[in-house]
Amino acid sequence: MSKPTNQSWGGRFSEPTDAFVARFTASVDFDQRLAQHDIRGSIAHATMLARVGVLSDAERDAIVAGLGEIAEEIARGEFAWSVPLEDVHMNIEARLTDKIGITGKKLHTGRSRNDQVATDIRLYLRDEIDIVDAELGRLREGLIELANREADTIMPGFTHLQTAQPVTFGHHLLAWQEMVARDQQRLADCRRRVNVMPLGAAALAGTTYPIDRHVTAELLGFERPAENSLDAVSDRDFAIEFTAFASLLLMHLSRMSEELVLWTSAQFDFIDLPDRFCTGSSIMPQKKNPDVPELVRGKSGRVYGHLMSLLTLMKSQPLAYNKDNQEDKEPLFDTLDTVKGCLRAFADMIPAIQAKPDNMREAARRGFSTATDLADYLVRKGVAFRDAHEIVGQSVAYGIEQGKDLSDMRLDELRQFSDTIGDDVFEVLTLEGSVAARNHIGGTAPDQVRAAAQRARDDLARGQS
Amino acid sequence: MSKPTNQSWGGRFSEPTDAFVARFTASVDFDQRLAQHDIRGSIAHATMLARVGVLSDAERDAIVAGLGEIAEEIARGEFAWSVPLEDVHMNIEARLTDKIGITGKKLHTGRSRNDQVATDIRLYLRDEIDIVDAELGRLREGLIELANREADTIMPGFTHLQTAQPVTFGHHLLAWQEMVARDQQRLADCRRRVNVMPLGAAALAGTTYPIDRHVTAELLGFERPAENSLDAVSDRDFAIEFTAFASLLLMHLSRMSEELVLWTSAQFDFIDLPDRFCTGSSIMPQKKNPDVPELVRGKSGRVYGHLMSLLTLMKSQPLAYNKDNQEDKEPLFDTLDTVKGCLRAFADMIPAIQAKPDNMREAARRGFSTATDLADYLVRKGVAFRDAHEIVGQSVAYGIEQGKDLSDMRLDELRQFSDTIGDDVFEVLTLEGSVAARNHIGGTAPDQVRAAAQRARDDLARGQS
Amino acid sequence: MSKPTNQSWGGRFSEPTDAFVARFTASVDFDQRLAQHDIRGSIAHATMLARVGVLSDAERDAIVAGLGEIAEEIARGEFAWSVPLEDVHMNIEARLTDKIGITGKKLHTGRSRNDQVATDIRLYLRDEIDIVDAELGRLREGLIELANREADTIMPGFTHLQTAQPVTFGHHLLAWQEMVARDQQRLADCRRRVNVMPLGAAALAGTTYPIDRHVTAELLGFERPAENSLDAVSDRDFAIEFTAFASLLLMHLSRMSEELVLWTSAQFDFIDLPDRFCTGSSIMPQKKNPDVPELVRGKSGRVYGHLMSLLTLMKSQPLAYNKDNQEDKEPLFDTLDTVKGCLRAFADMIPAIQAKPDNMREAARRGFSTATDLADYLVRKGVAFRDAHEIVGQSVAYGIEQGKDLSDMRLDELRQFSDTIGDDVFEVLTLEGSVAARNHIGGTAPDQVRAAAQRARDDLARGQS
Amino acid sequence: MSKPTNQSWGGRFSEPTDAFVARFTASVDFDQRLAQHDIRGSIAHATMLARVGVLSDAERDAIVAGLGEIAEEIARGEFAWSVPLEDVHMNIEARLTDKIGITGKKLHTGRSRNDQVATDIRLYLRDEIDIVDAELGRLREGLIELANREADTIMPGFTHLQTAQPVTFGHHLLAWQEMVARDQQRLADCRRRVNVMPLGAAALAGTTYPIDRHVTAELLGFERPAENSLDAVSDRDFAIEFTAFASLLLMHLSRMSEELVLWTSAQFDFIDLPDRFCTGSSIMPQKKNPDVPELVRGKSGRVYGHLMSLLTLMKSQPLAYNKDNQEDKEPLFDTLDTVKGCLRAFADMIPAIQAKPDNMREAARRGFSTATDLADYLVRKGVAFRDAHEIVGQSVAYGIEQGKDLSDMRLDELRQFSDTIGDDVFEVLTLEGSVAARNHIGGTAPDQVRAAAQRARDDLARGQS
Repeated sequence: MSKPTNQSWGGRFSEPTDAFVARFTASVDFDQRLAQHDIRGSIAHATMLARVGVLSDAERDAIVAGLGEIAEEIARGEFAWSVPLEDVHMNIEARLTDKIGITGKKLHTGRSRNDQVATDIRLYLRDEIDIVDAELGRLREGLIELANREADTIMPGFTHLQTAQPVTFGHHLLAWQEMVARDQQRLADCRRRVNVMPLGAAALAGTTYPIDRHVTAELLGFERPAENSLDAVSDRDFAIEFTAFASLLLMHLSRMSEELVLWTSAQFDFIDLPDRFCTGSSIMPQKKNPDVPELVRGKSGRVYGHLMSLLTLMKSQPLAYNKDNQEDKEPLFDTLDTVKGCLRAFADMIPAIQAKPDNMREAARRGFSTATDLADYLVRKGVAFRDAHEIVGQSVAYGIEQGKDLSDMRLDELRQFSDTIGDDVFEVLTLEGSVAARNHIGGTAPDQVRAAAQRARDDLARGQS
Repeated sequence: MSKPTNQSWGGRFSEPTDAFVARFTASVDFDQRLAQHDIRGSIAHATMLARVGVLSDAERDAIVAGLGEIAEEIARGEFAWSVPLEDVHMNIEARLTDKIGITGKKLHTGRSRNDQVATDIRLYLRDEIDIVDAELGRLREGLIELANREADTIMPGFTHLQTAQPVTFGHHLLAWQEMVARDQQRLADCRRRVNVMPLGAAALAGTTYPIDRHVTAELLGFERPAENSLDAVSDRDFAIEFTAFASLLLMHLSRMSEELVLWTSAQFDFIDLPDRFCTGSSIMPQKKNPDVPELVRGKSGRVYGHLMSLLTLMKSQPLAYNKDNQEDKEPLFDTLDTVKGCLRAFADMIPAIQAKPDNMREAARRGFSTATDLADYLVRKGVAFRDAHEIVGQSVAYGIEQGKDLSDMRLDELRQFSDTIGDDVFEVLTLEGSVAARNHIGGTAPDQVRAAAQRARDDLARGQS
Repeated sequence: MSKPTNQSWGGRFSEPTDAFVARFTASVDFDQRLAQHDIRGSIAHATMLARVGVLSDAERDAIVAGLGEIAEEIARGEFAWSVPLEDVHMNIEARLTDKIGITGKKLHTGRSRNDQVATDIRLYLRDEIDIVDAELGRLREGLIELANREADTIMPGFTHLQTAQPVTFGHHLLAWQEMVARDQQRLADCRRRVNVMPLGAAALAGTTYPIDRHVTAELLGFERPAENSLDAVSDRDFAIEFTAFASLLLMHLSRMSEELVLWTSAQFDFIDLPDRFCTGSSIMPQKKNPDVPELVRGKSGRVYGHLMSLLTLMKSQPLAYNKDNQEDKEPLFDTLDTVKGCLRAFADMIPAIQAKPDNMREAARRGFSTATDLADYLVRKGVAFRDAHEIVGQSVAYGIEQGKDLSDMRLDELRQFSDTIGDDVFEVLTLEGSVAARNHIGGTAPDQVRAAAQRARDDLARGQS
Repeated sequence: MSKPTNQSWGGRFSEPTDAFVARFTASVDFDQRLAQHDIRGSIAHATMLARVGVLSDAERDAIVAGLGEIAEEIARGEFAWSVPLEDVHMNIEARLTDKIGITGKKLHTGRSRNDQVATDIRLYLRDEIDIVDAELGRLREGLIELANREADTIMPGFTHLQTAQPVTFGHHLLAWQEMVARDQQRLADCRRRVNVMPLGAAALAGTTYPIDRHVTAELLGFERPAENSLDAVSDRDFAIEFTAFASLLLMHLSRMSEELVLWTSAQFDFIDLPDRFCTGSSIMPQKKNPDVPELVRGKSGRVYGHLMSLLTLMKSQPLAYNKDNQEDKEPLFDTLDTVKGCLRAFADMIPAIQAKPDNMREAARRGFSTATDLADYLVRKGVAFRDAHEIVGQSVAYGIEQGKDLSDMRLDELRQFSDTIGDDVFEVLTLEGSVAARNHIGGTAPDQVRAAAQRARDDLARGQS
């Protein structure tokens, strides 16, 4: 009986795969990224098989040595990837058999590509999560230190992009830090669910070989073997959960980016980004564009898209493994690359932000930003809050008409709206008075900002988010 | 100076809001759902204000009593909601002032609608999470008990919807259980981040009143006050994280639904769903449609959509609060309703599934489902796995041609492909032998299924997922 | 044989639907919105049935009269909707049978709820599209007229939110107009595909009655009957295509909104929105928030979400009708409401925008906005463009250092960077010179803006987009 | 003054771009795909510049010749792409200047990368659309011819995946054809909006050179120049609209795929896919997996994701060009590759589908698929439809109990439920009678299928969809 195909599964087939179909369905172009983790998984699998007696020690040694050589060939860029061999797994196994002969074929005993690929991705993702975690820590650190330096710098706080109340720049930066700290928490939660081992599930039902999954799990640093073989080969929650984490992170970075773009505009002019994070225009010689924040803002779309892609992929799939799942890798890989790139750019850039305190202060001074302080002043004098609000509203309307901020008005002008107002009003209308008065946990008072920065620093040092 | 509007913020305005705009921007139609939580938050706020001396005890008592009456009016459906009053907060405050006069206006001291609404949603979501958690537990329990009952029932396991290997129905159900257990874990992780108190952030910067946020947090059962006021009013991560949890859950339910729909088709006919979970056709009298799983499968789209909606909403928003955020509520509310409805339907329906073991068994018997067992048999006889695979592939090709399953072939037919095959082959080709042989943690052997069901039952009892 | 249920399909069922399931699967709460279109469809169907002899004229007359009365009951709000009757179709049919007896049951001859609901939605959507189309026209008209008024108003054009080159405000508004014109085109394309009649497809295969689908199509104003019955009952492309149109439209509105929010900020201060499109703050009396653009910006998420919801819904659905499809309505209805609300708000608001030409002009004057003009001047003097770019770049660097715009520099300062620069340079550095020089189709020169406004006006008058 | 950078825009910069940032922001790795279209655009631009006198004929000739050589270098794979040169545009321009000296720098006169890249993408997309259109035509043709061949083959029609009524396989295939025909219509609509020329918009405001955009548009085959320069550089509707088209197409392919996967399962066994479109299993030798449909089904997620990515990208972007927009290319490119790959696979595979008419027929025979025919028979005998439905429902309940299809019952058994039933009932209960009776436009009768196939063939020949 002739063999029409050289694939690992060709026995029952009477016709070779269409050449286009072979290319269309092959994954080696992108899953070769898993090569080193595939080899680590295979070494652990062979080690376990020898421990339970399915392989001899000599077979194990041959396999481990052969895989070690292949790992180096790949690392040196000398490995010849073959599309007809479909995927990273078959490429490596074929090379192993080239090297060590028939023993190489025994490596696949007691496993299937279904549990193998699920294991590879989890090993790979776990390593990548650790890199991402470190970058998140570096970004948080940059934010905390900058916040601490800028604890006294006054800027306008906005709601609805309208001047609302004065805040400190340090306080604003710590708001960003809180976002990233939550992201780091979510990443840690996700990692726990990534770190579970599918290997041993084989194609879908487990295997008839006397495997010891606890051994393999321990060798690979997994917390435990997956509890159910059908679930193990068909579960892609971990990829979706990571991408959901990434979507929230990119959403946060898009918000920071939006503000950085605003702040570097001529209209705001609150900060300066060093030239090395900007690019220029091929036609407008005066331009210095905040490319990094803009690009990162745009990349939120990319990551949201990958999340939607993976959710759609898994919708309505019957158990267990289906070929659809080959589509899990590219969105996950690109999400990882995007997250690492954006975090690196931000962690490098944040500490280099140059505040322009005079511009910030001037912007805060205008725009009636201490109107709430005037209302609070009236309340302390016994006026009900809603009435105080009304009085201040009328003062502001007058100020707009006259082109005067509240702090520019004379006492008699202010007293038009309420004779409760006295001489002592002017100290509450200063910016320093306004921020210092918000002196409770979470408030914008410089002392609170410094204390919050210290707490954040301590959390970070303790590895908490 | 006349007051052109009766809104809480009308002072500086010279023109009333356009009637259509008032309706377009009002939220009371949907945020009235937060009423009871708004009142709980207000009672805690008033209690704290009295404790720090901003309100007198008498003022606090009047407020608390007034709010209590309003809570009852709302519970009885007697509260008259007003669109011109914009939202749930102003509706309740206006009613309070009607009831208790000027003191009602003092309730808003030291807070803003920005921190108030964020607090309300978190209180509401926390309660709803606890309901969802209980339903998840009920669904898991139903799955575990059914799995235990069906631990010996053999069905075909599928990959690529092709018959792959025999599995037990109980094993399949425990795969579902694993999915839901992860969902419950994620929900618990989410709850920790929901349970943080924004109140005290005021509009964005904190307040000048001497508030004690730890007191309010304790009164409301929050784990801690939010660390940063700007973040507190602009953070909607918790809604996105919940919706991401819900998307994964609905994805899982869509997979189960897909399988239920398949299994109730005439072609599979593996199970029966009781009539009470099905509906019929207005034109085809013979139809009994698996409406519940179909509808739940469709509802995955709804929840994915809400996740995308919220991620888009937050993309690129500068700090702090923007009106955009009013759009956070409807997607979250509808996600909650959908999740609760789908879980109730599934938790009710799962225990009522009637397996048809004969049909399942017959389907497993056909389709060469023990081919892997034959390959494993050959390997145990010393054939390399890849070669064994090839031999079995040829046997299957022959079987297709002859219309015979492997277990239907005579020994001499089997030996055409390898003379390693002996008389003892037939025991490995039985379904019972096949499933029993996958006897390791996570494998489909009935004993493993029962053990796994017991572990799952114990986890559930300990409140773990 | 007893009848355990009163549903239209109960014959083969031995157990009534679970009460919760009945509520969970019922659609009447939201599909009652289709009532008038359902009745129109039924009247046409009955008319056709009489024409082909399936109904007598008397039967038809009774049905048409009965339906007419029901339409009025619904319009007057007097119709009692029943959840046990599941949907709008069964509610109306049951009421018809109440009114006219057994003849009412004949209405359903030759159709099914599957083709009926698909017909209803298309009729409804077609009417709604016409309303949306009119609002798009009104918005375009407002943009064109405002653009024409502001054809000479100079503002800074931005790229990367950095001052790039001066443009006219009219030109900017016409960019918005182009977006909306494309939306209107897409809507017209979508309408053609909506306007196809499913009726006659019956449950999925057509009917054995001698129906004449051309007659019904003509009565209902459909362009043609759908070509294939299986497709007719399972196709939801039209809802997705409409939602894709709406997503693009909301994306455009989100961009306009973003700019309106920027322009009303204290930092830009380019325009004023009338008070009637804004709201205030319950805590900060000075605030005037651009609520309408903010809310519309946020609503982009809602519509994107509905698009994703519908795409997910239809993914992987086998033919023909599945219960999943009940989930098509709410996303479509909410998209329609959102689109109509946002368009109304924008079409009302745009003509009321008050430009602040002095602020715009001042912003354009700063920021080296005529740097490109200097480069072009050098090129006209024979300098290669890339070299000219370099020279101007150095002049700008010098300007930043000295705090001088290009037009503020003395000739000898400019000549530091190129002795090609002569006295005539100053006229190209004016704002008016800069915009007037971009005098080609699509350019920002005031004359071009006026001509473009006229072309747009003519297109609109001719019903073109 | 030293030049710190060699970028095209370095004049005003005092510090070189950070090396990581340069890589992070460069696009040449993916936008080199636009090279040939970039060159075509540049040749047309140079030709126009010469025609209006901005370039001499000799300059134009040098540019055109130089670009021609570069086009060939790229086609031969000999072009050395440089990341420091950022993008495809600067790479080509730098090479041109290498080749022809200072004249090369003049090519960029009167344009910017902002209008250049928008033009390149549109030229590229237009060509790709034409390829996609041809593949859509090929797929439709395959469906039509297969449908025509299978016009008499009876299979069960499903609703809710329950056997509903008999249909012909040809009819089912024509339902697929209708979906694809709508896709082709939408593509044509999209192409009209793609085929508009941004060139001449320059950076955002047009140019001061006396360009003639009609000339360039004609040279490049564009229908017209874009009407507004700000819109021209910031519009990415065309990419979104194409991706929305692609999402609908992939949704359709996912539905077909789902059915192909079902039909090749052992449970349905309705068709056979040739081996060359399938792959096997590395562990289960008997498997023949429908990889192509599964993979295509999974790729729906990828394309939906890209749509969401682009919509998110554009949300809230202020005019005109922002760096975010660099993120438009990869989703669009990958969508194109995916669409072309999936269409090729399907257009190749569809004609090779082998129906298994006996299995289809047997499945249709069971499952009471002619129940509706019995109801219609009763109606023709004067029973009201709803009552007929009830009678048939009871007959089916009896049939389930007795294990008999309707056509297996004796007359006296049938007459238990209605004495209106006579001897002539049995002809309406045959499958052939059932399908033949649905003999109206859109119905499943074989003659209707053949007529519909002929109409579809004619439409296709006339280039209509």
